[in-house]
Amino acid sequence: MTQGLLQGITVIDLTRVLAGPYCTMMMAEMGAEIIKVERPKIGDDSRAIGPFLEDRSAYFMSLNRGKKSIALDLKNPDDKALLLRMLAQADVLVENFRPGTMQKLGLDWDFLREQFPELIIASVSGFGQTGPYTDKPAYDMVVQAMGGIMSVTGEDGGNPVRVGSSIGDIVAGMFTAAGVNAALYRRSVTGKGERIDVAMLDSQVAILENGIARYAALGTVPGPIGTRHPSIAPFQAFQAKDGYVIIAAGNDKLFARLCKTLDLNELPSDLRFSSNGKRCENVLALQAVMEEKLAAKTVQEWIGILEKQGIPTGPINKVDQVLQDPQVLARNMVVTAPEKTIGELKMAGNPIKVDGMDDPTTRRPAPLLDADRDEILNWLAKSEGGAA
Amino acid sequence: MTQGLLQGITVIDLTRVLAGPYCTMMMAEMGAEIIKVERPKIGDDSRAIGPFLEDRSAYFMSLNRGKKSIALDLKNPDDKALLLRMLAQADVLVENFRPGTMQKLGLDWDFLREQFPELIIASVSGFGQTGPYTDKPAYDMVVQAMGGIMSVTGEDGGNPVRVGSSIGDIVAGMFTAAGVNAALYRRSVTGKGERIDVAMLDSQVAILENGIARYAALGTVPGPIGTRHPSIAPFQAFQAKDGYVIIAAGNDKLFARLCKTLDLNELPSDLRFSSNGKRCENVLALQAVMEEKLAAKTVQEWIGILEKQGIPTGPINKVDQVLQDPQVLARNMVVTAPEKTIGELKMAGNPIKVDGMDDPTTRRPAPLLDADRDEILNWLAKSEGGAA
Repeated sequence: MTQGLLQGITVIDLTRVLAGPYCTMMMAEMGAEIIKVERPKIGDDSRAIGPFLEDRSAYFMSLNRGKKSIALDLKNPDDKALLLRMLAQADVLVENFRPGTMQKLGLDWDFLREQFPELIIASVSGFGQTGPYTDKPAYDMVVQAMGGIMSVTGEDGGNPVRVGSSIGDIVAGMFTAAGVNAALYRRSVTGKGERIDVAMLDSQVAILENGIARYAALGTVPGPIGTRHPSIAPFQAFQAKDGYVIIAAGNDKLFARLCKTLDLNELPSDLRFSSNGKRCENVLALQAVMEEKLAAKTVQEWIGILEKQGIPTGPINKVDQVLQDPQVLARNMVVTAPEKTIGELKMAGNPIKVDGMDDPTTRRPAPLLDADRDEILNWLAKSEGGAA
Repeated sequence: MTQGLLQGITVIDLTRVLAGPYCTMMMAEMGAEIIKVERPKIGDDSRAIGPFLEDRSAYFMSLNRGKKSIALDLKNPDDKALLLRMLAQADVLVENFRPGTMQKLGLDWDFLREQFPELIIASVSGFGQTGPYTDKPAYDMVVQAMGGIMSVTGEDGGNPVRVGSSIGDIVAGMFTAAGVNAALYRRSVTGKGERIDVAMLDSQVAILENGIARYAALGTVPGPIGTRHPSIAPFQAFQAKDGYVIIAAGNDKLFARLCKTLDLNELPSDLRFSSNGKRCENVLALQAVMEEKLAAKTVQEWIGILEKQGIPTGPINKVDQVLQDPQVLARNMVVTAPEKTIGELKMAGNPIKVDGMDDPTTRRPAPLLDADRDEILNWLAKSEGGAA
């Protein structure tokens, strides 16, 4: 058993809060060593974001499990010199300061590239390192709104709604990790590092998907449509006796099978529902006919019946149900980082499963601020000795 | 200028519809050569999913720009032999069949690993290659519901709502790309390929973020809360004179500045609003006080005023506005693939910007079914000749 795909890679992590830490968490999960450089005294801002367990942020602990921490004041010349020594021994630097901050710290890209030609440098920011908005501050909420996903999420004709997890940050962190990993491959070919620039706003545009295709092809501006899919039907939540059941019959074959199962055999030849295009046009009528039948049984009953017919279906799980789901558990997607004062905080596992590699259900807990200073200094001395 | 981080990498792409094609689209954007293997006559199912432009799917065209197509019937021994010859020359195989299908085709992992020890093999599926649900069918809608994100998305106390883009598929495709890229790096160290297994359901759990932290730390099951953030306030959409404005004042300093700007100087010392925790507890009261002031001016007026104070803010853009946004355009996030019959279909660009590498605003259009057969056969003959 090996540690992961990125075993042997060292990442110097200047990131705070979510987009950057999510990227380096992914890399930690793949076996990289993450050295988190934090401000003295305060550390990563997310140490102060709830929910809290015994005065420690469960939010911070989830995102930073398995990382090491050293506190450095990058405005102090000695601390900055220490950072430069660390960078000389590292493979990757990830930062998510506001554009311009690295320059102010004397850590601009050109300087770093010259000093450390093999170092991969990745920056995640709200709007990116270029363009008219580069200096503007951004949080998840701002890019979810500006990037269009809020405009297609929500009830039909209802109020605007935020995607309930911070995908403005998370998706940017994921693109950054994909880019850094590709740059590690690239370095194996060229021997040189690369500089990567990911913007949260760009990342939102990149996941807008058929919202863009619909506008580009048809000129219609899409809006929120509840649980429905804009161009596949039936593909939504339906009201059953005791709640909502998802039915996703994405093609004619599945639709015919669904109609048979619901004793609605006349529907596939009904001109309103005879093709996916027609079903999308008449989706509210289709929903009404189906819900009349679905009202007779419970969500769990329908799921059992539909599954037997091979029709994609499922419940709308709440978070507690997700964490108890047999498949989620079987895939080690709930992990803990056992820790003396806190106990066992549950968190999401690693979705990138690799054959023959460890996929444990425990993690090293997130570090206290500056907890790994001695170990990091030892590693540095050893690495510099080895290089000499 | 070089093509991208993955220049020189060849991917054999057996994927259909969205999760797999999104992964290989990301790799194409990073410079990899993608050879899309499609069923004869029908091809990728998404060729039949709207919206359509001149009978061609804009949805398919967006996801498959820059790829090459060859039609193979994998149940036909000659075609399968051709696939194996292609795999011998390739770096990566990506597939998103239902688990078991590759085995039925005689293309199971063990066989492929033995035949092609350097090949990286990635599978994306609804529930993964293991666990009790592995055989169940899944679409985006099903995993969005089962994975918990729908349970935290929607209006406060409202109906369930789907995230308006297919993040059930997209996020799984992104994790797969990150894993494949890491495996390419790993292969540069070990000389061996790896086998990667990504599930759409796992991927949803991995992006649930503070929904899990809140339940794990506090035992409370989170629900939908409109545009609000569960543990940061003010951080939401507010009603202004002519629509909604986003204000994300994520810390005490920004909150104080916001209050000054809104002429609400008494708020930071008001015990209901004196800390982020208090503001979250009394968020509806805070919203009421703020909206009373915000009603006086338009969204654009407020954005101008708040930006001057460095307070993160923005509008809720619809898709047409996103595609005209100066920052989005400046970052080359709107690209086209000029094509004779269709013209210029707009699509999202590449969010992974790499210094010194091309970031063009045009792409090679998505292929017609089997369009690149001759070119692929030539490449194969040449590669095999070169290897002999």
